[in-house]
Amino acid sequence: MTQKRIHFTASETPEAQTALKRLVHQYGQNPVSQADVIVALGGDGFMLETMHRYMAAEVPIYGMNKGTVGFLMNNYDEDNLHDRLEVAEVTTLHPLKMAAKDMHGRVTEALAINEVSLLRESRQTAKIEIKIDDKTKVDELTCDGVLVATPAGSTAYNFSAHGPILPVNAGVLALTPISAFRPRRWRGAILPREARIVFTILESKKRPVSAVADAVEVRDVATVAIEEARNINILVSFDPEHNLEKRILDEQFMH
Amino acid sequence: MTQKRIHFTASETPEAQTALKRLVHQYGQNPVSQADVIVALGGDGFMLETMHRYMAAEVPIYGMNKGTVGFLMNNYDEDNLHDRLEVAEVTTLHPLKMAAKDMHGRVTEALAINEVSLLRESRQTAKIEIKIDDKTKVDELTCDGVLVATPAGSTAYNFSAHGPILPVNAGVLALTPISAFRPRRWRGAILPREARIVFTILESKKRPVSAVADAVEVRDVATVAIEEARNINILVSFDPEHNLEKRILDEQFMH
Amino acid sequence: MTQKRIHFTASETPEAQTALKRLVHQYGQNPVSQADVIVALGGDGFMLETMHRYMAAEVPIYGMNKGTVGFLMNNYDEDNLHDRLEVAEVTTLHPLKMAAKDMHGRVTEALAINEVSLLRESRQTAKIEIKIDDKTKVDELTCDGVLVATPAGSTAYNFSAHGPILPVNAGVLALTPISAFRPRRWRGAILPREARIVFTILESKKRPVSAVADAVEVRDVATVAIEEARNINILVSFDPEHNLEKRILDEQFMH
Amino acid sequence: MTQKRIHFTASETPEAQTALKRLVHQYGQNPVSQADVIVALGGDGFMLETMHRYMAAEVPIYGMNKGTVGFLMNNYDEDNLHDRLEVAEVTTLHPLKMAAKDMHGRVTEALAINEVSLLRESRQTAKIEIKIDDKTKVDELTCDGVLVATPAGSTAYNFSAHGPILPVNAGVLALTPISAFRPRRWRGAILPREARIVFTILESKKRPVSAVADAVEVRDVATVAIEEARNINILVSFDPEHNLEKRILDEQFMH
Repeated sequence: MTQKRIHFTASETPEAQTALKRLVHQYGQNPVSQADVIVALGGDGFMLETMHRYMAAEVPIYGMNKGTVGFLMNNYDEDNLHDRLEVAEVTTLHPLKMAAKDMHGRVTEALAINEVSLLRESRQTAKIEIKIDDKTKVDELTCDGVLVATPAGSTAYNFSAHGPILPVNAGVLALTPISAFRPRRWRGAILPREARIVFTILESKKRPVSAVADAVEVRDVATVAIEEARNINILVSFDPEHNLEKRILDEQFMH
Repeated sequence: MTQKRIHFTASETPEAQTALKRLVHQYGQNPVSQADVIVALGGDGFMLETMHRYMAAEVPIYGMNKGTVGFLMNNYDEDNLHDRLEVAEVTTLHPLKMAAKDMHGRVTEALAINEVSLLRESRQTAKIEIKIDDKTKVDELTCDGVLVATPAGSTAYNFSAHGPILPVNAGVLALTPISAFRPRRWRGAILPREARIVFTILESKKRPVSAVADAVEVRDVATVAIEEARNINILVSFDPEHNLEKRILDEQFMH
Repeated sequence: MTQKRIHFTASETPEAQTALKRLVHQYGQNPVSQADVIVALGGDGFMLETMHRYMAAEVPIYGMNKGTVGFLMNNYDEDNLHDRLEVAEVTTLHPLKMAAKDMHGRVTEALAINEVSLLRESRQTAKIEIKIDDKTKVDELTCDGVLVATPAGSTAYNFSAHGPILPVNAGVLALTPISAFRPRRWRGAILPREARIVFTILESKKRPVSAVADAVEVRDVATVAIEEARNINILVSFDPEHNLEKRILDEQFMH
Repeated sequence: MTQKRIHFTASETPEAQTALKRLVHQYGQNPVSQADVIVALGGDGFMLETMHRYMAAEVPIYGMNKGTVGFLMNNYDEDNLHDRLEVAEVTTLHPLKMAAKDMHGRVTEALAINEVSLLRESRQTAKIEIKIDDKTKVDELTCDGVLVATPAGSTAYNFSAHGPILPVNAGVLALTPISAFRPRRWRGAILPREARIVFTILESKKRPVSAVADAVEVRDVATVAIEEARNINILVSFDPEHNLEKRILDEQFMH
């Protein structure tokens, strides 16, 4: 059995940088282009960055926790890394693709692993029309905002906004309003993954809204189109005893 | 194109019986064993009965609404039935299989199209252990009860108990507590369809609990095992413009 | 300053009985009729029993925790009891008065410190009409059940059934449905304390419902009338640093 | 019985202006300083403006509906106005007093009849410390925002943010988070009306937050102190059959 060639990458914290040095010393460093696996050292935030950076590579990313929050990370251990990588289970995630057009007609495209969210920018309540597959489903959602989340992101912002946790392989997306005023306390919907969602901001000058796809923020949007980018495969690698499906399942039994 | 052979069946209301006579007169009647399609006349309650009765036949069931609630029914119309049946879209549902053992050791097996639910029988709060795939997930759920719902049933009792609506093809089940006292306001979980759920009633003499699978009720249960019966296919037939997936999606935008 | 004459009472657990002996030895025992304060040793369950037993006495009840749950209890300490009783703060609670008429016309009256609750007895969904001050507010609540809770009881069953926590001096009651099916996910209401609530069970033979006022259960009810018994004063005594208002407030910040 | 002297005021819509002319013609116009009652013609938005403008006058304000939303308004009718005013019931409301200090040390004071709300201004999640009566109740609320609502405002923004509806005379305030991320899905609290709430924005440069008291918005706040202004009495006048208490009660039974 040939050992996997590893590319290590680490967040900027001293702990992660020290771990990087020790692991590179022990296992060697390979350029991404020749790596069989990327090992990311840090917390969930750095893992998301790494996933964005190496999306195109279609190389599995194996996180080891050197951060404060580690939902997406395996436990840190310097020993037996080759053995762990050999048996690790890979989950394929698809990001959301956002195309946001602002009030001046500029279009920004960005990918989101967790969610695309819209939020009002001023004291003026947002008014948003929701179309799914070209059909108007909500004429006018009066709200603080609205978001679309992937299953992997369903435990994050979506959950805070009272949305449902989704199994990672369920093939669905969560559409979740933030403080829905009209329709009164509308709870949102679970959509098939093929859904193409278009938000149109009504009275967008008086009621400015910003859109965010992971780290990319677009101010003063006019329309935001969102769909799953099923042609982009993000490979995330987990120790079998704590794979992503089990984590999201277990997350629902925490209290 | 050969016309489908139809077996008509109807609920006992005068409206449904009148419709039965008119339709048999117009389209003829066939025994179930020779039918290509079963047309059920009534409301959702009768449709569920029909699905239970003809589960084994694996013949599509096409409901026409002659009842008060018609979520599972197509619109009633006596004309062009052959054309409608020709283009109707068939959704395959799998029921849940319940094996409930009572305090005297008797085992009752039953199938549920919507949900299997447990509820306390007396003023004593129920205490229930929840295992999934042989792993204890909740040691002791103190509650009024708990249920497992299919996607097709997720808009019914599950929704009333504050559970999530599930897309019909999402391949998941909803595990939803009823008035969870401990863990405090636990919200339940969305499970992969392969999950095998076992409820064990704690202190079952002092705290009696009944279990219900659609129309079958078992009093004083000790353990209840639930899993999807993927070997049983229930074929439900809908006009394309109102198929089940669209109905459940639209249900989430009603207010 | 005259020392208060104490009547001690304890639950049947060995710990509570031992504490009873030690405290009676140290502070003496007085009959209830001559006591200035009742000291109850046990947990919340025993405290509720004590409150029911000595309601009419209008003597403050001071609980000391010798049980597993002690939301209503002060910390246990054998020292300085007279000093603690001197500065303790008394909260006046009013119970709910339930008058439940069953299907045979028998009327049962009972008092509830926490809540009066109704729950279906069989697999048949309950159908309940709700009147407030003789006005029909809900024609037909299709549900597992419904409850009315006092502020003191709002953190208990009411909270599990997704009802709101109420400040102890807010002068309101919570009306909370259990698994409301129709009206779809109705959330219940916060009522003024003067409200007189009457539940009428519809189709009560086919759909039997039981009613519970704390430890009293009435099977097969036809109507249940509930109102605050403002003529009954239950005096509960707390150390100032943990009085009931602060506890209920703090309960809302626990997580 | 002396007739009340009326000051009429109207929103700028043609309908309200026409009504103003007709009513002034029929009943005469009086300056506010000599009026026994102010009659406001418009919708809820205009009613709130009128309440703000004439707060100090302590003259009852009687709204008549010429707008799109009329929760605070009586039905429009040109006849028998003196009779209606004679029997109208007056509810006294107290606004919230907000003192918001921004990052540059500037303090803005404003009154809010419905609620004081805070919302993040950028894609950075807000982190907010919550003190009540000088005691830290939440160290760090990670969220979109948070609000404090009066009972009169509890059916508005507070309800959209999943907060409870409060009876108008309950003497309580609602503290409600908007998309609470940590503590996970914290539900907020019902506070006694005497509570003094202070929000401190953590990392306020990186995570800017704005505060809004009805129509007054303060950007980039550092701290926001909120308490009920019990010295300010806003008198709102309603036809007895639809007084405010009944409206808020009925609102809870709408579905």
